Amino acid sequence: MLPNSPENELLSAELSAELSADNSTEFSASVPDRERLATLRHTASHILAEAVKTLFPTAKLAIGPAIENGFYYDFDHPPFSHEDLTAIEAQMKKIIKANNRLERFTLSRDEAVTLMVNSGEPYKVELISDLPADAEISFYRQGDFTDLCAGPHLERTGAVKAYKLLSSSAAYWRGDSANTTLQRIYGTAFFTKPELEDYLAYREKVRLRDHNRIGREMELFTTVDIIGQGLPLFMPKGTRILQTLQRWIEDEEDWQRGYVRTKTPFMGKSDLYKLSGHWEHYRDGMFVIGDADKDADIMALRPMTCPFQYFIYKASQKSYRDLPIRYGETAVLFRNEDSGEMHGLTRVRQFTISEGHLVVRPDQMEQEFRDCIDFARYCMQTLGVDEEVTYRLSKCDPADMDKYIGDPAVWEETEARIRAILVELGIPFVEAVGEAAFYGPKVDLQTRNVYGKEDTVITIQWDAVLAERYDMYYIDQNGDKVRPYMIHRTALGCYERTLAWLIEFYEGKFPTWLCPEQVRVLPISDKFMDYAESIRMKLHAAGIYVSTDTRSEKLGYKIRDARIAKIPYLLVVGAQEEADGTVSVRSRFAGDEGVKPLSDFIDQVSLEIRDKIRREELRLDEKS
Amino acid sequence: MLPNSPENELLSAELSAELSADNSTEFSASVPDRERLATLRHTASHILAEAVKTLFPTAKLAIGPAIENGFYYDFDHPPFSHEDLTAIEAQMKKIIKANNRLERFTLSRDEAVTLMVNSGEPYKVELISDLPADAEISFYRQGDFTDLCAGPHLERTGAVKAYKLLSSSAAYWRGDSANTTLQRIYGTAFFTKPELEDYLAYREKVRLRDHNRIGREMELFTTVDIIGQGLPLFMPKGTRILQTLQRWIEDEEDWQRGYVRTKTPFMGKSDLYKLSGHWEHYRDGMFVIGDADKDADIMALRPMTCPFQYFIYKASQKSYRDLPIRYGETAVLFRNEDSGEMHGLTRVRQFTISEGHLVVRPDQMEQEFRDCIDFARYCMQTLGVDEEVTYRLSKCDPADMDKYIGDPAVWEETEARIRAILVELGIPFVEAVGEAAFYGPKVDLQTRNVYGKEDTVITIQWDAVLAERYDMYYIDQNGDKVRPYMIHRTALGCYERTLAWLIEFYEGKFPTWLCPEQVRVLPISDKFMDYAESIRMKLHAAGIYVSTDTRSEKLGYKIRDARIAKIPYLLVVGAQEEADGTVSVRSRFAGDEGVKPLSDFIDQVSLEIRDKIRREELRLDEKS
Repeated sequence: MLPNSPENELLSAELSAELSADNSTEFSASVPDRERLATLRHTASHILAEAVKTLFPTAKLAIGPAIENGFYYDFDHPPFSHEDLTAIEAQMKKIIKANNRLERFTLSRDEAVTLMVNSGEPYKVELISDLPADAEISFYRQGDFTDLCAGPHLERTGAVKAYKLLSSSAAYWRGDSANTTLQRIYGTAFFTKPELEDYLAYREKVRLRDHNRIGREMELFTTVDIIGQGLPLFMPKGTRILQTLQRWIEDEEDWQRGYVRTKTPFMGKSDLYKLSGHWEHYRDGMFVIGDADKDADIMALRPMTCPFQYFIYKASQKSYRDLPIRYGETAVLFRNEDSGEMHGLTRVRQFTISEGHLVVRPDQMEQEFRDCIDFARYCMQTLGVDEEVTYRLSKCDPADMDKYIGDPAVWEETEARIRAILVELGIPFVEAVGEAAFYGPKVDLQTRNVYGKEDTVITIQWDAVLAERYDMYYIDQNGDKVRPYMIHRTALGCYERTLAWLIEFYEGKFPTWLCPEQVRVLPISDKFMDYAESIRMKLHAAGIYVSTDTRSEKLGYKIRDARIAKIPYLLVVGAQEEADGTVSVRSRFAGDEGVKPLSDFIDQVSLEIRDKIRREELRLDEKS
Repeated sequence: MLPNSPENELLSAELSAELSADNSTEFSASVPDRERLATLRHTASHILAEAVKTLFPTAKLAIGPAIENGFYYDFDHPPFSHEDLTAIEAQMKKIIKANNRLERFTLSRDEAVTLMVNSGEPYKVELISDLPADAEISFYRQGDFTDLCAGPHLERTGAVKAYKLLSSSAAYWRGDSANTTLQRIYGTAFFTKPELEDYLAYREKVRLRDHNRIGREMELFTTVDIIGQGLPLFMPKGTRILQTLQRWIEDEEDWQRGYVRTKTPFMGKSDLYKLSGHWEHYRDGMFVIGDADKDADIMALRPMTCPFQYFIYKASQKSYRDLPIRYGETAVLFRNEDSGEMHGLTRVRQFTISEGHLVVRPDQMEQEFRDCIDFARYCMQTLGVDEEVTYRLSKCDPADMDKYIGDPAVWEETEARIRAILVELGIPFVEAVGEAAFYGPKVDLQTRNVYGKEDTVITIQWDAVLAERYDMYYIDQNGDKVRPYMIHRTALGCYERTLAWLIEFYEGKFPTWLCPEQVRVLPISDKFMDYAESIRMKLHAAGIYVSTDTRSEKLGYKIRDARIAKIPYLLVVGAQEEADGTVSVRSRFAGDEGVKPLSDFIDQVSLEIRDKIRREELRLDEKS
């Protein structure tokens, strides 16, 4: 994907979700249906290609597969407009009506190349040249249109009865940014019209929930071409939500869970990454500063916090009585993602995580690991998303132990200990072979975004081995040096991604404590501006995020605007309220809540914010 | 300076302070004395050189000037040990006792080169080759020792009566890291022994206050060779102070002064810096990621926040009623400083500032600028350092207007407006020609570190021109697009540097609200551990940073440790306190404060923290 528009980012993420192997997000189809659907959509892609070649004879054909939820075809051609897509769709209708047979025929390699050279299709020629020298090469012909294709297809074009072109965007030939930029047209097809309509409705619903749309509309974040992809700028409202989340986690860690906090640099010398192993295994994923040929001190932006916190541990000698030490950091990390992988707040180049490393004695490990899981669960429950996550015990792969450090028997025993903790906590979980870190098994909290793509929100990792690499130790009761165990863990994981998830889950209607604007005061006319302002000041003094709509607009207009902004509480004030020192409360949760003394309202909202209470949203049909 | 040791960093900063042109930090000397002192010290450097050549004949001589507060001489030789310095000092004594004449003689260029080649002094040969071809070249001879030198010198070596070698460290030939690493020996000399002793006492006092020593001793921060120079790691205590400062400023801005907060990325494409002008004018000071020859999207870590906040402003259209908008950000910035320039927390490669940009209508400019100065003064007063800063009106240089944008008459008028604001606020200030930003005059709050080096703590800059460059506008009452004015300002400036300053100013004895450990509970024996722990929990629940000394040590030992840690309050508890529910309070401010009910103590300290009260420190002779 080339251009940095939200829509293209969205498509890119959607596509990667559609193509991801471990997900089954195919809309509605059962397994045997899927193969039939793929055949239908593959045929639809040929119809699309024929339509494009008819209307735009200079377009060159690249590839056109069926994909999950639809199909696409790539063309070497200038970008297609909306009008072009409409015309192509109409042309497809004609081809379907013609109901031509799809006829398969085969050619030798030389004949196939000759046919495609004569047809002026250089990409097809390149594809053929990649096939084995003695391959029999198959084509499909429908009317005057012929395409290189392995098949299978439906018998006739007329079988494609329910189809729709969805969008077009840039794509590289063979997915490589060094190659030509092609134009990809996406479409979908179903056997019946109702199925197509259901899918389009589902798609629209997903689009409406996408954080990349809602987050921009609500002015939570933006991106700027000249600054770069994957580098969102948080606007004041989005920054406020992030600050609320970060302070919550920091305070929970420091005041409730015995963490101490660090603030470590965002870069380090290559020597550091050589020690950690990132230089050898992850260099392409890092932003490297300086040129290895020229500079003695080549540096890189950090993709993790681990060794930085280890060196804080190592700054002074520790005794067995000093442990456990729980280090927390609101840590900024960097990953050099490809441009094509950027999407809103979920695939970014710079992000902030609630990073932590616990350095513990082996005898403390189980209790500390349990506490980390408990903390993660507390976070999910407080955010109201605990039913959205799956707990996963990520294990090593006994068939591929070269990838891991340590003895299979020890791995098995450790995995059993973690399993017992999860059972004891009463947490349902799945087990996944081959998903462990190379140094130990872990518990991952998994969720899915609106496109069905699975992501890890929180990870808690058991590490009995890395202290050796960094020469970390403590002095035990006998005066001996002993290697500690470590837990690598996050509390909320990545704040940017968590915000994206919350936007999608709540469709922007956050619990009051997370809202960047919690209350809006609406004077019913300019006469009550002073009273409205006095209310605003009192709420502000109580630590509530409040504003006044001072515009000379009708009340209905102001209420509508406030609803669009998804503000939990609206306080309507006029003559009666001013005389009585009251406010008329309308909320997202109960509609009209009636007239209340101002101090009662302040007490109620303050408690709701302090205790992070989530009131249930009013259903639409109940709204006053 | 090569090695990354605290001491060398210290020396480096000291040296740069000594060499800085705008400071007069020469200890005790009046102006006419200074020239005589320089001559004395220059002679002392020759005595040093003779002593080194006597003891280490293979050492090659580089240069040996007098500097402020002393002298040095650079030698090409392996590093000198402490013992070496002692031996050299003893050898100098012999040379002084010999009381040889310093005799000047001159040679032609060729003769001079021959003499130095024969003496085996390649650096001197190189120095001679830089002199004009027809120069008459002067030497000084004392006994058997001869040195290339312009003079002047004292008549005899015996005149150097009060001298001391101070340290040695690495230095590059001609200050260029591409050249050979030399060993520099620092020393000082005075006319009288008492003057020398006064200076050494002053030097020791300064060393004791240096934040780079105190900050490490108090475990506020550390540095790690493998991570890199200029990249301090904040340990839990230092992180806590920074968090307190940052939250204080953020809350003051957002809740008291009408700021909105942003969180913007730490890097951007080169296109952004081309727009800002940094690519052309400041590229060497930036960390550049990627290779301009290879990468389309070359990026750089940001050295400023300005355009990032401007693009937040530009993300939606603004009306005259939306202004002023005050953007604040706890912003991380990066500067690619040379290794030799690193020092503790004051010269670093990554730092965090309380950055802000106010976008205002021209008619709002004066009031907003005044408020920014008021805010800066409030910060200085709250920290107790208002008497340490000088306010400076930094003006353009009328003789060099090519450096500035705009009409000299407009500059003069703007400077007059700022002057009037300072006068109106009753703030004494100095005026400095040529210190303005290129886009406008500014008010700088200046301070000095322990070495006398001047630094800007806070800056408030008037900008009537840059909105044009970024095409920023608002819609006025008539529907026309108008360029806003801007104020670039910091609240506390750079947090790292402010912390360094506070460490030096308070010698680590911070006001209670800033202390990472505010109270320590000291049970007089193990029997009272439970009571001590119950007190700790109550203080913790009240939001006080508290710990218990649970070690089985004598009370006197625990008190001494707590004093070294500069903890404001010690609560001693034994049988009587447990029986009565009280605590025996000892403080840094009043020594023994007597026995108090626990709740009274909590109320008192909570108030002191909340209101950021600074209690006066007890003088040493008053200590109980």
